Amino acid sequence: MAGAKTHPVSPLAPAALPELPELAGIELGAIEAGVRYKGRPDLMMMRFAQGTSVAGVFTRSKCPSAPVDWCRSILGKGNARALLVNSGNANAFTGKAGAAAAKTTAIAAAKLVGCKADAVFLASTGVIGEVLPAEKVTAALPRLATTLKADRWAEAARAIMTTDTFPKAAVRRSEIDGKPVTIVGIAKGSGMIAPDMATMLAFVATDATIPEAVLQALLAKGADRSFNAITVDGDTSTSDTLLAFATGKGVTHKPVTRLTDSHLKTFRADFEALLIALAQLVVKDGEGARKFVEITVSGAQSAPAARRIALSIANSPLVKTAIAGADANWGRIVMAVGKAGEKADRDKLSIKMGGRLVAEKGAVHPRHDEAAATAHFKSSEILIEVDVGVGTGSATVWTCDLTHGYIDINADYRS
Amino acid sequence: MAGAKTHPVSPLAPAALPELPELAGIELGAIEAGVRYKGRPDLMMMRFAQGTSVAGVFTRSKCPSAPVDWCRSILGKGNARALLVNSGNANAFTGKAGAAAAKTTAIAAAKLVGCKADAVFLASTGVIGEVLPAEKVTAALPRLATTLKADRWAEAARAIMTTDTFPKAAVRRSEIDGKPVTIVGIAKGSGMIAPDMATMLAFVATDATIPEAVLQALLAKGADRSFNAITVDGDTSTSDTLLAFATGKGVTHKPVTRLTDSHLKTFRADFEALLIALAQLVVKDGEGARKFVEITVSGAQSAPAARRIALSIANSPLVKTAIAGADANWGRIVMAVGKAGEKADRDKLSIKMGGRLVAEKGAVHPRHDEAAATAHFKSSEILIEVDVGVGTGSATVWTCDLTHGYIDINADYRS
Repeated sequence: MAGAKTHPVSPLAPAALPELPELAGIELGAIEAGVRYKGRPDLMMMRFAQGTSVAGVFTRSKCPSAPVDWCRSILGKGNARALLVNSGNANAFTGKAGAAAAKTTAIAAAKLVGCKADAVFLASTGVIGEVLPAEKVTAALPRLATTLKADRWAEAARAIMTTDTFPKAAVRRSEIDGKPVTIVGIAKGSGMIAPDMATMLAFVATDATIPEAVLQALLAKGADRSFNAITVDGDTSTSDTLLAFATGKGVTHKPVTRLTDSHLKTFRADFEALLIALAQLVVKDGEGARKFVEITVSGAQSAPAARRIALSIANSPLVKTAIAGADANWGRIVMAVGKAGEKADRDKLSIKMGGRLVAEKGAVHPRHDEAAATAHFKSSEILIEVDVGVGTGSATVWTCDLTHGYIDINADYRS
Repeated sequence: MAGAKTHPVSPLAPAALPELPELAGIELGAIEAGVRYKGRPDLMMMRFAQGTSVAGVFTRSKCPSAPVDWCRSILGKGNARALLVNSGNANAFTGKAGAAAAKTTAIAAAKLVGCKADAVFLASTGVIGEVLPAEKVTAALPRLATTLKADRWAEAARAIMTTDTFPKAAVRRSEIDGKPVTIVGIAKGSGMIAPDMATMLAFVATDATIPEAVLQALLAKGADRSFNAITVDGDTSTSDTLLAFATGKGVTHKPVTRLTDSHLKTFRADFEALLIALAQLVVKDGEGARKFVEITVSGAQSAPAARRIALSIANSPLVKTAIAGADANWGRIVMAVGKAGEKADRDKLSIKMGGRLVAEKGAVHPRHDEAAATAHFKSSEILIEVDVGVGTGSATVWTCDLTHGYIDINADYRS
């Protein structure tokens, strides 16, 4: 049963949550609804001021969860007024009963907020195949709704955890046309390597005024370079959900009308940096992870080709176990490049580990220093760079190692 | 270092090698050349009678090994007269020096056999990135060539092993137009889950008379339903090689002219059955494997779509760890179906484990018997059947579980 076993905090966890500032236009909170876990908050709610715009990016799974179906159906219909998230039950693969349960909770939240149900966004993660017990959520909601406050981000970050070993949040102080704006994000994910826990949720909010179309473009582009760059499993769970909310209740700034507005440049960079920070936190809580790995592929035919090669390396169990064992086994990287299915010139291929050339022009580098490579593979942050010698496309992805801890957790998850 | 550590024989290994009959037109043998291993044969040679036809199927890796390049370059140029295989060194990612080393060994073997170098087929498996020490091979070859005999199949099967825990061979007594013919095959592979060991080699020979074009078609079709159905990693190593030889030196039979000849029907079925048997042996020696898993997907848009879904299930670390832990976690199967990228109707999806319905119409089956499913997952042969409800395409693949043994072997391979 989820949560029956607790695992030690990841050695890659940050020392503490950053301080999470209040955002004008957002009140939030968490409560114990008893959906599945006992003795901890498992239901989180955010209430947004009128006029809050919303954008979303969802799993590409062909078997999405009921809350994902719900969010997709209401996105673009108007403003967001609330977000309701439970942990412990993914409400995925639950058929019509699951869809009805999701709708019931949205209607109940809408009544409390005083809005239509289609302004209430939903997310659920946890066990697949069990209908969400909507009555537990609706019973807990009234009390939750009366306790929402602007300073509860940390509680919210904790309430959405499932097998996560630490809460995840990030903050960016940014500006639009010289006016200060703030972005706060929280995420959960026990590693993209655990897609059946319905994996990854992230919620990002800002007090800036960003029209829906621009927010959606920001989010889609940002997701590509962050959450979609932390291994292929990431876009394949049944529940992956990334939502962004812009309340427009902070300091008034020059209006934003399109993604390419020059006064949006700094905000755009900060927004993307925040998404990358959140995505990296998810990797750092990867099940059994003991090492954080950055993989950059260059010289590919295109950026998407580079990313596919990088993900082929990042997803290879043989590369991941080599890293776990501090074995600087570059032959496995060659193998992963070869299997990616993208164009690569074997006889121009070069590989660096920790910044040092290991292989070049399709063969081991004459001055390859195996001891140095091994020393680098013993550290907790690993850097692998590969140039495949056919073009100018490049991409960076992040992953973690594959250890006995992963087997421990996943060979004994429900029982 | 490869072979520095020996692993216990797979619990899925057959009790013994089958008796391997002599085939008219083939003499073979093995010797210790000291390429990498000590105290065991590591160089195997087959000599074929004049007129032996040959067919080959190779890795789809974009970084193929030197011997794969060599075989591709000579296939179709004439008859096969010899096959030379070493274990311990894959001669992959070794640039021009590797290609030269491969050619040197082919020339040396050709001299001993009395043929051109382009009638000598090569295969190497083992560590990637080190040039094959050709001089060790050429030094051992003359003695090897003088000791070739028709009854040495078992020795050959053992000489090509790398991290394999048991030798692999299969035999089929078949007929063409009522005349008896025999097919013998040997294979090596420490699991398709171990592509950096350059994984899989299989050599199949028959005394039947099969023209090259028909043999190639037989092999390509057969590979699709056997070696290409034992997980995606299978077609992605740097060295995967499947070669078939037909000596035509057995009992004379009605000539074969095309794949669809009605008198070839039995032979074709037997040939494919032998390939499947060999492929299954490779899975049964999967690194750390304790369970053999058959996955059948039906109701897909096409047979290739069904295979992609089946392989998505078979390659999912979460499905494989669930099987290792005897956790009949069908939610992970839903997840793997969803991520396959193929059309599937979530609300018509059904899943069987060990022949019993677990999920139906997009939700758990009302009479799902979790205890029975768990009992099935505790056995050593697991059967998973999934119907995705959109068409008539079906496919079967085979895989093994993912255990601590895999991490043990792969986090500590070279050191």
